[in-house]
Amino acid sequence: MSDCVFCKIIAKQIPAQIVFENESIIAFLDINPVHPGHTLVLPKTHVESFTDLPSEICGGVGATAQKLMKVFIEKMGYEGANLIQNNGAAAGQVVPHVHFHVIPRKKGDGLVHWPGRGYENGQEAMTGAQVRSALSEF
Amino acid sequence: MSDCVFCKIIAKQIPAQIVFENESIIAFLDINPVHPGHTLVLPKTHVESFTDLPSEICGGVGATAQKLMKVFIEKMGYEGANLIQNNGAAAGQVVPHVHFHVIPRKKGDGLVHWPGRGYENGQEAMTGAQVRSALSEF
Repeated sequence: MSDCVFCKIIAKQIPAQIVFENESIIAFLDINPVHPGHTLVLPKTHVESFTDLPSEICGGVGATAQKLMKVFIEKMGYEGANLIQNNGAAAGQVVPHVHFHVIPRKKGDGLVHWPGRGYENGQEAMTGAQVRSALSEF
Repeated sequence: MSDCVFCKIIAKQIPAQIVFENESIIAFLDINPVHPGHTLVLPKTHVESFTDLPSEICGGVGATAQKLMKVFIEKMGYEGANLIQNNGAAAGQVVPHVHFHVIPRKKGDGLVHWPGRGYENGQEAMTGAQVRSALSEF
């Protein structure tokens, strides 16, 4: 898509530190990383949402993310990694071209995870029933 | 695995709000959710790490996560969702049975994303070269 910054990186119209690409997938460093090495993995085809990503592309993205995590842990001295996909602006998606963050991690690196808030009495069972009901309509 | 809490949920030895299951995949509510509806998607086979997950299972997990996100957004009034996988204790993995968090989101729901820290001069190119070199050894 002509005004998409990720499509421009894919077309080599603007520079990026590309670390992997094949016919359908590309991976490059996030320009504003949480940690150095923070990489984005995405389909070359312009698809806005994860929910619209075809399954064969989804599998390629997953395999690339796995390989990056292995590289971080087995070759680059990291102790773990996160895979994060933000679907929609409300979930933190900034560029409307689906992308998966792969973030290398070390113990004590200062990143804090979102806290759990528990369920009040009966709310867990009610929520479970709501999700099961909504899923049954698909 | 006999002492794995998720394997016990899969075996119906301890209760959980299961919202989906088939032969290879199960999804149930996180007992300590970031938001109500926060769901875990995982393989029924005990695999500790995402990096060891076979690709066919990875595809099934992805398809289940996509379906849950669609349900949250199209049926339950949410505006977005996150998919998060914490690989290793250093990355926030608490239960050593690979699982993917699907978290429903609304604008202004108070969850703050990890801040980007940029790269110093030359550090981005150097990091890109390191990742490419490490990937080339796989």
